[in-house]
Amino acid sequence: MSGDPSCVFCQIIEGQVQASTVFHDEVVTVFMDIHPLTPGHLLVVPNQHIADLSGLDHETGAHMLDVGRRAASGLRRSDIRCEGINLFLADGAAAGQTIFHLHLHVVPRFRGDGFSIVHGVRGSSPASREDLDHQARAIRMALEPGGRNDESNEVV
Amino acid sequence: MSGDPSCVFCQIIEGQVQASTVFHDEVVTVFMDIHPLTPGHLLVVPNQHIADLSGLDHETGAHMLDVGRRAASGLRRSDIRCEGINLFLADGAAAGQTIFHLHLHVVPRFRGDGFSIVHGVRGSSPASREDLDHQARAIRMALEPGGRNDESNEVV
Repeated sequence: MSGDPSCVFCQIIEGQVQASTVFHDEVVTVFMDIHPLTPGHLLVVPNQHIADLSGLDHETGAHMLDVGRRAASGLRRSDIRCEGINLFLADGAAAGQTIFHLHLHVVPRFRGDGFSIVHGVRGSSPASREDLDHQARAIRMALEPGGRNDESNEVV
Repeated sequence: MSGDPSCVFCQIIEGQVQASTVFHDEVVTVFMDIHPLTPGHLLVVPNQHIADLSGLDHETGAHMLDVGRRAASGLRRSDIRCEGINLFLADGAAAGQTIFHLHLHVVPRFRGDGFSIVHGVRGSSPASREDLDHQARAIRMALEPGGRNDESNEVV
């Protein structure tokens, strides 16, 4: 355990702060979000204090996603209303991250739950191909090597 | 390739429909969302036609997340405005899934981008411990075995 004593999620994982825990193992702890977007909203949290996406390693990320999938499946089988699932992760304050201990939100959804995403930058019209191609090129050029197939950064 | 001829994402992956592609390898293809929530919004899509979360295997999910992390890192280094990142996945129509070929959204965020999540079920007040404990128990009992540490379903 590499807990940060000032981090409320580390305090939950170490049993110093109360939470409604669903699951834990040596890598992650799953507990209910105290400010649920819908009833049944839970968080998959690495036991290690990883602040954000830049600190996430392959193994921990893969396990977080596996446990998130299991939790989603459990939600669908439980008596909590759940017709769909959103997985959501916020990386950085500008993305809505408020606790700087990385966490994957698992949010049960149902028709009429009142949940929606508002975006003010662009309406419902599609972006232009020219803009999308320009952005794709900019991101492609900024990708670090490390894929299974590095040279493919340049193709398609 | 196990493409579904009626699926627009399979058509993109097979080069039959135009897209602004950032990256591809033998497992995933990354291209710009044609209805971006913010400029630079991209999708990480498995090459195999996997409809939803229930069909996602460990290896493909882990690789989607790895590539999503690389794309997030590329976005932060590119000239696209990006002060934070949201990862988002919709599983089921009730969760906002419109293309039934699973995809991970990678959304660059910046202060004032107009993006927000609206939820109508509950206000900003925290849920009661009694409700959260009840939900945690319901989900815990509905979890299928398969964790690294199965018996922990019952503890904490």
